[in-house]
Amino acid sequence: MKAVGLIVEYNPFHNGHAYHLQASKDAAEADVVIAVMSGNFLQRGEPALVSKWQRTKMALLNGVDIVFELPYAYATQKAETFAYGAVSILDAAGINCLCFGSESGDITSFLQTIDYLEGKQRQLNENIKQYIDTGVSYPKAVSLAFGHLPDSEKFLDLAKPNNILGLEYIKAIQHQKSTIIPMTIARKNANYHDEDFSSATIASATSIRKAIFTHSNGKSAIDQYVPEPTKQLLKEYLESYQVFHQWENYWSYLQFRLLHARPEELREIYEMEEGLENRLLSAAREANSFHDFMQQIKTKRYTWTRLQRLCVHILTNTKKAEMAFISEKASYLRLLGMTTRGREYLNKTKSHLSLPLISKLSSFTENEIDLDIRASRIYSLGIPSRLKNKLIRQEYEQPPIYIR
Amino acid sequence: MKAVGLIVEYNPFHNGHAYHLQASKDAAEADVVIAVMSGNFLQRGEPALVSKWQRTKMALLNGVDIVFELPYAYATQKAETFAYGAVSILDAAGINCLCFGSESGDITSFLQTIDYLEGKQRQLNENIKQYIDTGVSYPKAVSLAFGHLPDSEKFLDLAKPNNILGLEYIKAIQHQKSTIIPMTIARKNANYHDEDFSSATIASATSIRKAIFTHSNGKSAIDQYVPEPTKQLLKEYLESYQVFHQWENYWSYLQFRLLHARPEELREIYEMEEGLENRLLSAAREANSFHDFMQQIKTKRYTWTRLQRLCVHILTNTKKAEMAFISEKASYLRLLGMTTRGREYLNKTKSHLSLPLISKLSSFTENEIDLDIRASRIYSLGIPSRLKNKLIRQEYEQPPIYIR
Repeated sequence: MKAVGLIVEYNPFHNGHAYHLQASKDAAEADVVIAVMSGNFLQRGEPALVSKWQRTKMALLNGVDIVFELPYAYATQKAETFAYGAVSILDAAGINCLCFGSESGDITSFLQTIDYLEGKQRQLNENIKQYIDTGVSYPKAVSLAFGHLPDSEKFLDLAKPNNILGLEYIKAIQHQKSTIIPMTIARKNANYHDEDFSSATIASATSIRKAIFTHSNGKSAIDQYVPEPTKQLLKEYLESYQVFHQWENYWSYLQFRLLHARPEELREIYEMEEGLENRLLSAAREANSFHDFMQQIKTKRYTWTRLQRLCVHILTNTKKAEMAFISEKASYLRLLGMTTRGREYLNKTKSHLSLPLISKLSSFTENEIDLDIRASRIYSLGIPSRLKNKLIRQEYEQPPIYIR
Repeated sequence: MKAVGLIVEYNPFHNGHAYHLQASKDAAEADVVIAVMSGNFLQRGEPALVSKWQRTKMALLNGVDIVFELPYAYATQKAETFAYGAVSILDAAGINCLCFGSESGDITSFLQTIDYLEGKQRQLNENIKQYIDTGVSYPKAVSLAFGHLPDSEKFLDLAKPNNILGLEYIKAIQHQKSTIIPMTIARKNANYHDEDFSSATIASATSIRKAIFTHSNGKSAIDQYVPEPTKQLLKEYLESYQVFHQWENYWSYLQFRLLHARPEELREIYEMEEGLENRLLSAAREANSFHDFMQQIKTKRYTWTRLQRLCVHILTNTKKAEMAFISEKASYLRLLGMTTRGREYLNKTKSHLSLPLISKLSSFTENEIDLDIRASRIYSLGIPSRLKNKLIRQEYEQPPIYIR
């Protein structure tokens, strides 16, 4: 059975994802689609709209055959680490092709850009350092520094976030000496960060979330942009838990933690850089909401995303010391769900999977999975009062979701 | 000017307190009444119904002339430490008499009991240890052990909480070589822990709080038991902050902290004894409310009060390491409020106060006051959303309350 791998967040699964899924399956001539999906906290340092279980159902009902969880240790990270974790999981799962969406849509330009950058790394790093010193953020500095290399305009546009991610996927494949064949498909009609609707059926996840949170008729406003199962599953989640998750649901916890922690405790938190802790501590005393807090701590130096990830690490109490033990490759395959076809694939391959397959939390202990469990518990606190305990327990009791 | 000292919580100030205040002033023939009052968290390990500022107003409008704060380091403690802190503050303030309420009401029996216990301490400690080994709580063991000493029935009844406190006050006076003269007045018509009303005008603070939280007409149900200023100030607080503080307002924070902390972090918390942290961690995953949580962690070995204090220390992140630096005597006098007469007293005595007088938080730093500030911040989180920041700022900006 030929397998194509996808790296996803599905927050929530929308028509653009459906398009990408089908196009990837076709391009790779695959029998099964395997997705590695971020858990409850995402790359941009945000809680997912609905739990990983509900998003797994969305994936399976929309054509994915197997969903593995991208552990928290890789999911809430910069592009490079995110890519290393995701690729290592897909590689262990034995996929043939990885097919990612990009602004470019041309795999040759990715490969040529990587070749071109080979040997220019020192010059690039120097350029990056110079831009950082002017006070801009790291991603911005990379894009500017790349633009200053000779002839760089002939290669990929590194100001585009999905091009950068794609580049990191390929670098991870090469670095991990994987046999995965990389492919890419151009994203349709919507930019990653678009906040507004611009097409009739395809919209970015960002604009869909914005519609959900800002319009009172949010759910019906997104109807044309998401497949039927997404609509149903969002509705079901809201009925069960009364909320969709967003940062504001966690603001009181973050504020509490910042009001009771000492600076030296905060300095132990992963990604806390020198001096940032004092900025956070004083903003916590004044801010009235998470958004207000972010406005107060924001500087040109750090991207919003970088600071949001830091805030997630504070919530989940993720420390530098424990992240130091995380390697470039994931150490397990946590199965969140599968279809009948997915099960067939796993039955055939499970004897030669290169990582342990976890389908239920039991005696398996690892730094990485401790982090996942903690992250799920904290995620559950975004739900009102009595309902949250149901979600806390689900992390332990939920077997992989199976869709016939 | 002759000064009588009182050790109080005023949670809230009621007719029994008014009676005790007047009787103390008369008995001591005092010109001024100086109270040392617990801040926002109390001896039983609970948040005060309303903030220390509002309770200071209650005190001043009901006849107290000066209110000093009993620092968190002494206020949320067992009787002995509580007494040491309170007595050291009143001693530094230069009071002549300390007048406490007790079930006994006879100062001679206190002094005789202390004399009697002199020389029997070893035997008493052995008895206590034996009772502890049977699994009962420390206070229960003390009372039983005392009862087993020969002729102990001729002395104080140490099963009564206010007798125990009184005994500790006198021991603190003696130990600190203070010149304070101890006096006691019998409590009227209400036992410390009574939960129900039994007299026409005097009720315990416990029964008053119970009425406030359980009856929808709670405030009017207590009218006959509290003086007019208390009524007004409770009403005003509710209008400003929409709540009275109780443990349930803090449950979500406690649960969050327990869901994200590691056992080794919890072991650093003051009063966390070996193994208790695991009990707390697993209860936090199951419990639906603070009361439910307490029911789950309770054992015969630990009193409810002892466990509640531990929970307060978790909330305020109070660690064994910092409490190790706290001495037997307080290190400052934090002035919460005064009347004109109180100001007159302070003007006359301030040149020979034996501790620094703090009337506004500024550059004064000390372990103890750090703890007070942190406790106040955390206390503020018991208030809904936007209103809490007002209370957080008050800790820094509020000058001592002055009532003409």
